[in-house]
Amino acid sequence: MVDTTYDVLVIGGGAAGENAAELSGRGGLKVGLIEHELLGGECTYWACMPSKALLRPGEALEALRRVPGARAEEKIDVKAALARRDALASHWDDSNQVAWLGKVGVDLLRGHGRIVGERRVAVVEDGEAEKLYEVSKAVVVATGSSASFPPIEGLDGNQVWDSRKATSAQKVPKRLLIIGGGAVGAEMAQAWKWLGAEEVTIVEVFDHLLSQEEPFAGEALEKAFTQMGIAVHTSAKTQSISRSGANEPATARIELSTGESIEVEADQLLIATGRRPNTTDIGLATIGLEAGKPIKVDDHLQATGVDGGWLYAVGDVNARSLLTHTGKYQARIAGAHIAGLDTTAWGDVKATPRVVFTSPEVAAVGLNEKQAIEKGLEVRTVQYEIGQVAGASALGKGYRGTAKLVVDAQRDVMVGATFVGPRVGELLHAATIAIVAEVALEKLWHAIPSFPTLSEVWLRLLEAYRDTHGKVFR
Amino acid sequence: MVDTTYDVLVIGGGAAGENAAELSGRGGLKVGLIEHELLGGECTYWACMPSKALLRPGEALEALRRVPGARAEEKIDVKAALARRDALASHWDDSNQVAWLGKVGVDLLRGHGRIVGERRVAVVEDGEAEKLYEVSKAVVVATGSSASFPPIEGLDGNQVWDSRKATSAQKVPKRLLIIGGGAVGAEMAQAWKWLGAEEVTIVEVFDHLLSQEEPFAGEALEKAFTQMGIAVHTSAKTQSISRSGANEPATARIELSTGESIEVEADQLLIATGRRPNTTDIGLATIGLEAGKPIKVDDHLQATGVDGGWLYAVGDVNARSLLTHTGKYQARIAGAHIAGLDTTAWGDVKATPRVVFTSPEVAAVGLNEKQAIEKGLEVRTVQYEIGQVAGASALGKGYRGTAKLVVDAQRDVMVGATFVGPRVGELLHAATIAIVAEVALEKLWHAIPSFPTLSEVWLRLLEAYRDTHGKVFR
Repeated sequence: MVDTTYDVLVIGGGAAGENAAELSGRGGLKVGLIEHELLGGECTYWACMPSKALLRPGEALEALRRVPGARAEEKIDVKAALARRDALASHWDDSNQVAWLGKVGVDLLRGHGRIVGERRVAVVEDGEAEKLYEVSKAVVVATGSSASFPPIEGLDGNQVWDSRKATSAQKVPKRLLIIGGGAVGAEMAQAWKWLGAEEVTIVEVFDHLLSQEEPFAGEALEKAFTQMGIAVHTSAKTQSISRSGANEPATARIELSTGESIEVEADQLLIATGRRPNTTDIGLATIGLEAGKPIKVDDHLQATGVDGGWLYAVGDVNARSLLTHTGKYQARIAGAHIAGLDTTAWGDVKATPRVVFTSPEVAAVGLNEKQAIEKGLEVRTVQYEIGQVAGASALGKGYRGTAKLVVDAQRDVMVGATFVGPRVGELLHAATIAIVAEVALEKLWHAIPSFPTLSEVWLRLLEAYRDTHGKVFR
Repeated sequence: MVDTTYDVLVIGGGAAGENAAELSGRGGLKVGLIEHELLGGECTYWACMPSKALLRPGEALEALRRVPGARAEEKIDVKAALARRDALASHWDDSNQVAWLGKVGVDLLRGHGRIVGERRVAVVEDGEAEKLYEVSKAVVVATGSSASFPPIEGLDGNQVWDSRKATSAQKVPKRLLIIGGGAVGAEMAQAWKWLGAEEVTIVEVFDHLLSQEEPFAGEALEKAFTQMGIAVHTSAKTQSISRSGANEPATARIELSTGESIEVEADQLLIATGRRPNTTDIGLATIGLEAGKPIKVDDHLQATGVDGGWLYAVGDVNARSLLTHTGKYQARIAGAHIAGLDTTAWGDVKATPRVVFTSPEVAAVGLNEKQAIEKGLEVRTVQYEIGQVAGASALGKGYRGTAKLVVDAQRDVMVGATFVGPRVGELLHAATIAIVAEVALEKLWHAIPSFPTLSEVWLRLLEAYRDTHGKVFR
């Protein structure tokens, strides 16, 4: 028996789900959003926002240290930093989000949502009987992803941090061992080191940190980390973890790139080796999809294995791009599509922007050189040291950073860009626009960066491109 | 009698002159550069660079104050700040620039250059006889501009600071009175106040600071200045200046917007009311141009009143746009054109980017709303508070800023953008690219900013534009 009907039901109220719900409802459709945890999701409470708060004091002091004339005591007040983190994570209280959802006219269904057949969703609230909903137009799955743990001998998920626990912790660990040197591992290593962890170690199986990015990005991070006393082991494998008892320090056996094995003792382990889609318990099998796998979608964000176009998936769960902002983008497209607009998503795959908020920051968009070559493009690249632009000197002494463009020479357009260095995160959007709009280098030559900003590196890159590749700018 | 010949002679070795010399010489032409002061010019020694050094410590401490958890003593070490300023101004020593010029194969002629007829330039070095040069291809005038003083009763140019003296001063004035609230006046007010001036007063004749920009920019600055104890008088006119004796404090009589007159006493006056082209003593009359006026040019940077296309003017002296980076741009175009390339300048007028490095920063490009309306465009605007984006919270508490886009609705493209707030300078280049390449808003919708950066304001602006103007993004 169907309890009630909706035009649209969204399963999962993270950033993507919220946006899909709001936008699909804009045309007057009746929309419900199902969430069993905090409305606002991973990014708000256990990822983007709290991690930035944990990093910011250390980054601000480091920036200050580069400025002759600005005298500072240079101390982090851990209590104040954690309190600020709590505030940026809204104290894990979603009442503001709930109020917003009401304001945009979307019903909040607190509970677990599960698909039980075509256009049918069951919701179980705590202690309540299951309710069955029929959906006239669309079901949007926006259940996100969770940390996935690697098969390491002795690894007990209950005793370690995942990204959630690492960003919401209330105590600085004395010795922190991080398995995985991607964005989460890198940000948390630096944050907790700055906040006072005595020993921080990162173990990464690939040959550099941030293995998805241009190698120089990970190398720059490794250098900065090493200088601040973080131990970085790349091309290294964690073989086993052992403890003398529950809640005792862990000893990890790690095989280094040299073949040698070492033991690292740690009071806290953080597993940051990747994500898996939250699709194990949402009823995918009832409509012929495989549980535990990402939901494949087309550019309308409609699930490709499902007839009738009623099932959408946005955000991490479709595995197109595991980032808050690309998930929100997909949600805007999906929501508008459900509301009747003929629109498709392409910016999230053509020009995926990503920023790692370490110091140096790593900001990249589009393809790296290797990916562009693999795509068969006529690839030309150019690289420039950002420290050489006047805007870097203006920020202080000893600025170090690098920018690189990847160009499809045949079409004279950028297909990728990477910036590494303090404050480069805000340089990225210019590259994103250039890639999305396929602005010819010929035209970028006439886009003048202001002196003395860091953005002047754009001029230097184009000059270097001209000189390296014999390009004539008119 | 002609002493020697060149293919190209550049008069004036600031940033624009240096670039024109280098680029025109790239094709093998014989190029000489005439400079009677320091090679590198205004920007390097007496403007952009030293001013940034004077501002940076205060800005860095202010940024830190917004970060809960970063405890700092918050003191400016004036001696260290001035020493850093000296370093960024290369200690007013141009030997690095001289070495660079030699490396790019351009002759340096130390002395005053003066046009003495068609393709003829006389150079007088200190204590040497005048030398006469014949030029086969082009003379490039890049003599820049100087501070222009308003006709104020009692104003003695010898006793006041212009922008040069203000950026190179070795002592913090106790009471500083600034006539003129444009970029120079605003930057110097904040810098010297941060460095310890007890009283700083700005007098601006227009009704807001930075009168060329969107009104909200000047208003935001005025608010910030007032909060830090800088007195700001807009719509105010300095009527007279008097001193009890040379080197004594000055008393300025100022008519306020209310009609009331007040007296302000100051130990130091800074006149920052504008610039005039350095064309009084370069022989313009010998070729039929008017001394003291800007040299009008076409889009090849060739002087329009001169036959034969041998005279070029780049940088402040042509009055197209009085900024280092636009001057350098013009120099690149002019240099390439002299070297034989068919190229024209347009980026410097279509999308002139400018950044005022105060706190809050003011960054703008293209037209403001008023200018766009005056051009007869179908203007639509949108504004958004940058403090509301997550990236602002990530930087600390109490971020305040505003972004505004000016759109030509008929063509669906941006024609102007203004950003006000801490760190917004690096947001500008994205707007510059969008304006230069005329990227449709429709397409900008698919350029995703990273979360949580300040650049997310781009998404918010487009969302607000959609909601305000009923725009449908596909």
